[in-house]
Formats: sequence, structure tokens, C-alpha cells
Amino acid sequence: MHQPSVTQAAMRSFSQATDPRLGQVMALLVKHLHAFVVESKLTKQEWLCGLEFLTQSANITDSERNEFSLLSDILGISSIVDVVSQPEGGTSSSVLGPFHNHDSLVRPNGVNLSGDQPGQKTWLHGRVLDAQGQPIAYAEIDFWQNADNGLYPAQDPLQDPHNLRCKILCEADGSFNLLTLRPHPYTVPTDGPVGALLAASQRNIWRPAHFHVIVSAPGYVGLVTELFPADSAYIDNDTVFGVREGLIVPLLPSHNLEVAKRYGIEMPFLEMNFDFHLVRQIASPA
Amino acid sequence: MHQPSVTQAAMRSFSQATDPRLGQVMALLVKHLHAFVVESKLTKQEWLCGLEFLTQSANITDSERNEFSLLSDILGISSIVDVVSQPEGGTSSSVLGPFHNHDSLVRPNGVNLSGDQPGQKTWLHGRVLDAQGQPIAYAEIDFWQNADNGLYPAQDPLQDPHNLRCKILCEADGSFNLLTLRPHPYTVPTDGPVGALLAASQRNIWRPAHFHVIVSAPGYVGLVTELFPADSAYIDNDTVFGVREGLIVPLLPSHNLEVAKRYGIEMPFLEMNFDFHLVRQIASPA
Repeated sequence: MHQPSVTQAAMRSFSQATDPRLGQVMALLVKHLHAFVVESKLTKQEWLCGLEFLTQSANITDSERNEFSLLSDILGISSIVDVVSQPEGGTSSSVLGPFHNHDSLVRPNGVNLSGDQPGQKTWLHGRVLDAQGQPIAYAEIDFWQNADNGLYPAQDPLQDPHNLRCKILCEADGSFNLLTLRPHPYTVPTDGPVGALLAASQRNIWRPAHFHVIVSAPGYVGLVTELFPADSAYIDNDTVFGVREGLIVPLLPSHNLEVAKRYGIEMPFLEMNFDFHLVRQIASPA
Repeated sequence: MHQPSVTQAAMRSFSQATDPRLGQVMALLVKHLHAFVVESKLTKQEWLCGLEFLTQSANITDSERNEFSLLSDILGISSIVDVVSQPEGGTSSSVLGPFHNHDSLVRPNGVNLSGDQPGQKTWLHGRVLDAQGQPIAYAEIDFWQNADNGLYPAQDPLQDPHNLRCKILCEADGSFNLLTLRPHPYTVPTDGPVGALLAASQRNIWRPAHFHVIVSAPGYVGLVTELFPADSAYIDNDTVFGVREGLIVPLLPSHNLEVAKRYGIEMPFLEMNFDFHLVRQIASPA
């Protein structure tokens, strides 16, 4: 078989899939992976290196650590999947990352998550609106971030597992607010084959600082996104390509006396104001 | 970032690789994988399925079994790598497969590998020639195949580890011959995620019968190939896409009395005649 016929035979081999979508996705995966081999003129030795890379990734993968997920992130696959599935008209989505927990507690709107731990007090507030700018009542915000040492609770046995994360029900006018801390940049895990690849590529291993947010409301497409303080390091070279223009938000000193009094904090504290826009779900065809 | 800018950023992230070829290959891998996501409009749910597939493949992979190598085979990646790296003018190469051993014993030209085990006696003979049809003296042939039960020694504790494999030094005129058995179709391993994918795709899981051969001679590009008896089942839908037109060879009844006498076998036995053509190595640039 010649080059085109090997590719055509491999694509055709998926044409009888019981789920036609599986057949379609697999045929396109074959098409594009073969095009990669052809354009790069990949040698057998290089193909063996790739296989060895995947085998090493398998060896380091367990229930706590998934090197394939990390590989997807640093190749920008997770981000391009995110961009492709983005509905038009709403706030940009971004990557979920590995630190989301489903069991965050519902706390009152206005909650103080920062307590007395170290870090710069940051008042995050805004509204949840539809694509036309009208308030969505009682949307849910699921919020998580890392602590002042750059670590998430899952990475840091000294933190309470619920530290700096919660769910909040927004008000009838769409508004929400909470007191938290400035988030910090952190590196992806570099002790596996992906770390070796990043090193050999002389690539940045850091993500810029960010808040993680999932916004959901009945009748609207759920939004998984991140907010990036505009003054964060690595905002221009996020190693997982999660930064989108509309998600870079100023984090500015605030002298809002009412807020300082409410939380009993010193001025100036930091303030971030952001409105989320959700897109209406399209009714599925019957 | 929009779609093109995520892809461009991910490609550019490899531009500082210490080995420029690594940077080139990774950028092209990013380009084509992103193109796959865009063309298939891959959903997050489908991406998570893909990640779960790789994680399951990691779980079943160990020193004896490599699900990633199998995945590469059934997607035709191994074959397209093989086709792309094929030098012009020689015998077609084909996939190495997982059953090659480096420690096969050198046996005399004409060796009888079949002994008294079950199977159809098959006389394999031919010559090793250059691209112009001139004999190459004393080339080495590394030969292996499965037994009459369809299994290789590595899969079958009842077989001698050296059963039906050997190395042979060809004669000064390029000729070689040996007595072996008709090889048989066999299935790829189907107890892992690749097997589930093949089942969901309603794909054939069989490879057609074949002899494995590696031909090497100083000054020539080594040839890793397979010879497929023309009457084998699955010749038109090899599940790893290894069949090439020039490698389908008649396996015909023979009444050659001299050969029958030499090996003490009954007529008719089976006969396959095949000449290998090797391509001269090009001197590397200084």
C-alpha cells in the first residue's frame, strides 16, 4: 500500500462503528495523525521515542496523577477543545484544571474565605448576566484558588481541604461578592516525562495566577472559566494556554470604607470586579 | 485567545527546543492534533473519553504488554511511519510487530525449522539482490513466524523459545532457502481498551498469515518486512494495515523431487519463492 491507501484504509476501517459519531471522530483522528507523520517525515526511531514517552507516561500515571491529562494541557489540546466548544456571545471559558472538587460547601453570598491565613485580602464581586446584559437570578458560583504559598489544599496537608473554595448562590439581581486572597502562579508537575519534554523544549513551566470559577444557572450553558489578575507573572506565556483576552481582569487597590468595615480589614485591600455572561441553552431537537 | 492564536501559541512554545528537530516535530504534532479537534468539533465529553481511554491503556501496559504500541498499529500509525521512511527502489518494508527476538540463532542456509511439529511443510527460497537486480553476497536473513496453532513461542509455553525462528547467512550469489511451515492468521490482543475500540467499531481483529523477515547487508539500508501468502484469509483487511502489494506472494504446491528428498518430506509440499531487493545506503553528509 502507498501512503494515501494506508491512510484511506485506516480511516475506512472505522466506517462500520455502531455509534456513527465514534466512527467519524476516529476517522478524523487517523487522518490528522497520518498527516502529522507525513508532514514531519517521522522516522521509525522518532516513532519509537514517542512510544517510549507514552509508556513512561503510563508508568507515572495513577489515581492521583494523570500524565496524559497534563500532556493534553501543555500541547494546548485541552485549551483548543475548550475554545472549539465555546458558545458564541458569553464569557470565554477556560480549562478546568486538576484541582476542582465537587464537594465544595454552599456559603452565604459575601462570605469571607480568607480568615487569618497569610495573603493579600481581595474583594471579588460582580454579577451574573445573560448575553444581552440582563441579570440572571440565583445563579450558582463554584469558586476555588490556591493559597498564598501557591498550593491548593490537595497539594498541601497543612491546609483545610475546604480552604479558599466554596459555592455561592447569587442574589435575585445577579450580584455576588466574597472576600478571598490574591492567587499566585504555580508550576505544572515536572517530575515525569512531560516535565522532561518541557525542559528539552526550554519552555516555561508556570501558569499565571488565577481564580477558578464555574457559573451555572438553569436554562443556561454552564461556564467553566478562570479570571487572571492582569498584573500576574506569566500572563503572556501560560504553559497550558488557558489565558483568553476577556479573562484578564485588573486587580486594583481599593479604599471602599464600607467593605473594609464589613470584613474588618485594612485599606487599601485589593478589588476585582467581573461580570459573567451566560448563553441560553438551545432546546435539543425532539 | 481564539482558535488560531491558541494553536499558534502552542506551536511557538516549542521553538526554543535545544534539539531543533524535537521543536519541529512537536510543533507539527500540535498543528495536526489541533486541526483534528477543530475539524471534528470535539466536545469536552469526547475529550474526557479519550483521556479515559489513554488512562485505561496505561493501566494495562506493563513490560510484557504495550497497549500504546497496539493502538499505534490499529490506527495505521505504525504502517504510515513505515511507508514514509521507505527508501525508493527496494522491496516494500512492513511493520516489525511485537514478536521479534534479537537472540535468534544463526543456522545453516537450507535449515529445516519445521521438525516433526504439525503444519504444512513449506519451502521458502529466493535471493537477496540490490535495486538493479545484482546479487548481494552474504546478506543476513532474520526470520520468524507463528506455529500451526497460530501462536508465537512468546504466547505458547509448549513451544521451544526458538521454534520457527533463526538467522541465515545467504550464499555469495545471494541465494537462501529454508524449510518451515505455513504461517497462520492471528488476532491482536483484545482484552484491553484497544480491543473494546475494535469491537465498538465492528472491526476485524485478525492479521493475515505472514512470515516476518529482516534482511541486512553492509552498505545497504536494512529491510524489515513481511511476506503474505496470497491465499491467506484477511489479506484485504489486515487490522494493522501491514499488507503491501509487492509482499503478497503465491504459496503453491510443489513436486520438486530434489527438495522432497533432501528434507525427507512428502510431495506435494508448499513452496514460496521471493527475491528481496535492498537499497544502497547513502553516505551521510560530513
